[in-house]
Amino acid sequence: MSLEYFFNPRSIAVVGASPRTGSVGYTILDNLKRKFKGRIYPVNPKYNEILGLKCYPSVRDIEDDVDLAVIAVRAELVPRVMEDCSAKKVKCVIVISGGFSEIGPEGAEREKKILDIARRAGIRVIGPNCIGVFDNVSGVDTFFLPEDKLKRPPKGSIGIISQSGALLSMWLDWMALKGLGISRAISYGNKVDVDDVDLLEYLEKDPETKVILLYIESIKEGRGRRFLEVARRVSRKKPIIVLKGGRTAKGMAAASSHTGALAGSYEVYRTVFKQAGIIEVDSMEEMFDVAKALLYLKPLKGNRILILTNAGGEGVLAADYAERYGLEVPELPKDIRESLRKVFPPHVIVKNPVDVTGDADDERYKIVLDTVLPRRIVDGVLMIAPPHPPTIRGDIVRYASEAYKKYGIPIVVVCTGGKIAVEFSKKFEEAGLPTYNTPERGVQVLAALAKYGSYLREIR
Amino acid sequence: MSLEYFFNPRSIAVVGASPRTGSVGYTILDNLKRKFKGRIYPVNPKYNEILGLKCYPSVRDIEDDVDLAVIAVRAELVPRVMEDCSAKKVKCVIVISGGFSEIGPEGAEREKKILDIARRAGIRVIGPNCIGVFDNVSGVDTFFLPEDKLKRPPKGSIGIISQSGALLSMWLDWMALKGLGISRAISYGNKVDVDDVDLLEYLEKDPETKVILLYIESIKEGRGRRFLEVARRVSRKKPIIVLKGGRTAKGMAAASSHTGALAGSYEVYRTVFKQAGIIEVDSMEEMFDVAKALLYLKPLKGNRILILTNAGGEGVLAADYAERYGLEVPELPKDIRESLRKVFPPHVIVKNPVDVTGDADDERYKIVLDTVLPRRIVDGVLMIAPPHPPTIRGDIVRYASEAYKKYGIPIVVVCTGGKIAVEFSKKFEEAGLPTYNTPERGVQVLAALAKYGSYLREIR
Repeated sequence: MSLEYFFNPRSIAVVGASPRTGSVGYTILDNLKRKFKGRIYPVNPKYNEILGLKCYPSVRDIEDDVDLAVIAVRAELVPRVMEDCSAKKVKCVIVISGGFSEIGPEGAEREKKILDIARRAGIRVIGPNCIGVFDNVSGVDTFFLPEDKLKRPPKGSIGIISQSGALLSMWLDWMALKGLGISRAISYGNKVDVDDVDLLEYLEKDPETKVILLYIESIKEGRGRRFLEVARRVSRKKPIIVLKGGRTAKGMAAASSHTGALAGSYEVYRTVFKQAGIIEVDSMEEMFDVAKALLYLKPLKGNRILILTNAGGEGVLAADYAERYGLEVPELPKDIRESLRKVFPPHVIVKNPVDVTGDADDERYKIVLDTVLPRRIVDGVLMIAPPHPPTIRGDIVRYASEAYKKYGIPIVVVCTGGKIAVEFSKKFEEAGLPTYNTPERGVQVLAALAKYGSYLREIR
Repeated sequence: MSLEYFFNPRSIAVVGASPRTGSVGYTILDNLKRKFKGRIYPVNPKYNEILGLKCYPSVRDIEDDVDLAVIAVRAELVPRVMEDCSAKKVKCVIVISGGFSEIGPEGAEREKKILDIARRAGIRVIGPNCIGVFDNVSGVDTFFLPEDKLKRPPKGSIGIISQSGALLSMWLDWMALKGLGISRAISYGNKVDVDDVDLLEYLEKDPETKVILLYIESIKEGRGRRFLEVARRVSRKKPIIVLKGGRTAKGMAAASSHTGALAGSYEVYRTVFKQAGIIEVDSMEEMFDVAKALLYLKPLKGNRILILTNAGGEGVLAADYAERYGLEVPELPKDIRESLRKVFPPHVIVKNPVDVTGDADDERYKIVLDTVLPRRIVDGVLMIAPPHPPTIRGDIVRYASEAYKKYGIPIVVVCTGGKIAVEFSKKFEEAGLPTYNTPERGVQVLAALAKYGSYLREIR
């Protein structure tokens, strides 16, 4: 059955709802009440009313249909609640409660019971032992940390699927600070039913989601082939970025304690990611960096870049990183060098990196872009633009954004520094160009855009 | 002659001083006037007074002694000003002006002239073609960007020597935002006289400087052996962190255009850095991360670390990074595991990484630290402490800082997230523990502390 009711239910029952501030059952109800527009039914035999909403002794007692049930009661009670959901013909269930396969054989048995009931009743299950769904469009939010502890990011186009609930929570909080927007985020816990593959397929069709982030420790046994198949199909339409936990022996051992991840070889995962066109990143910072770039820019058509700077040292570092990350920094043709030479003072360096030097005004940047880009000799630009020199007035932002529109060659901006660099970065991003604070991060992002572009060309 | 007068002059002449807002000669004079406590003499034959200070036609006309002359006039005029300085017995000169060896043979000849005059007169020279000195103690500040464009960092213990003036400027601005404190910073430009070696020796004896950062594209020809000798001596007392520009063929080619760096093999530099006990970093972010850690913590006595987390996924990632960066994550002895097992609920994972899980309170962290650290089975701790769970009240900050004081085993903290994570990071740092926003950065820093510790043990 479709996963639609996890994200767009008309009604939600919160089983284990509680009036006790700070408790899981309270926080979920409170969050839903503030954001979810559909009907909400607290369920708890101990209360008649919670937060002004009528409270029901059991899911069975709710008068209307229930699309989604969120279960946050003690593990031992979950099977009985599942039976209630089955009787009530609930369509989807999120089991927040822990105390299942992650704690040993007794819990595993309980987990099997849940699955059996769900299968018989045709209920789809996310969890158990999870934080569930954060849907920034419909307002479904089962993350049980209140907003004063965990901020929620603005609406946006990034969808996240995470095997770790804690990581996902922290990322939401972080993205709120960065201003990075989310469409929907899901952590599936023990994935007794719904797993990465199902969720990838859901986000594939979700018009709100343009870029998909994946934190993964292991694919469910027997789902490897299907994962490859689905990911390959999805990544043609929407980029998928993966951060893999458990890439080393020590990390895999830790993952096995954490989520019961099987000690599959990382090499196998790498191959699958590569074959599926998934962009693998090395750290969470790189993950956000690349996601931002993919929201702003098209993939690169090749791996040749122009480095354009007013700070020699940053140009040197960028050239180093380019070589390391497999990008080419081609020599400029003689006629281009000569034509730049003619219009610039003698201390400007017209090789690649082009160093317009510290006394450059905004126009020098424009001249370089308008001279080099129409010739199609590079596939991307790293534009290093620290705004400190008094000669930089700010037109550089418009020049760069116009150049991207005119020539279709992606431009990634680097603004290193403090307050004024942060201000300029905002201006560049408002103008549609992703901006980073170091040359390394800018180059990493260009390399990811080039790799994704190369994958898309190959499969055509 | 000593470099002391660059940093602690009793009087400064600003040659090329100007009343024109935004000009180099104005900005330098204005900055000095606001911060430098000694006597200041503007020099410019066109004016009688600038910014309320008596202005002199030439350095020769100044009545009192001049310790330091800052020269910011057209290149062609610099040799004559140098002669004036010689006649006036000026002790140190900073030549800001460009138009010397970096622009070709004509400039190189001019540069030689300057050096000849300086040698004859016993004047020490920083530059030409440089931004000079920023001294946060004495108030000497020849960086010619006004503070509204380029913020200055607070007083602190980091000394910086940079071959790139632009990079150094951006770093100052960035450090101001980060709140990282600086003692003194120097960019030496074409280093006709004073170079990295001289400046290392100066910072070696500078009581204000505890950690030295170095951005370097190339050592001056013939100074390699001396650099090794001096750096080796300095790094015994104060850590030196280096970021090398021009590590690849492409980067070296760019460096050669930028500062005339000779195409020396990066392998040679790496060997020198290693032999000298210099900590090499890969990016500017890592440079600041490691510098901060060295200000707060002692080096590690070995490479074994404890990973302590309440978020499983971050523990997994940390274990991955530890293996990559050469740190060991040893198994905990059976008796330790058993004693932790006894006091914790069954879902807590008492392996290394220790995962006290999302419902952990501050006390669980304390118990682990007090159980593991006294046994001396690890040399450092990566404490992952996202503050989002409502059970984390904040005592964790005190517990961790007390544990470091009591057991002497360095603790690096990771706080991932948004607003609340930033707040907690501040609290940890106020309590003396360096804090980072990702497990990767925390592990990188521990690896650097371990490497430096291992060097210090070897040379003993």
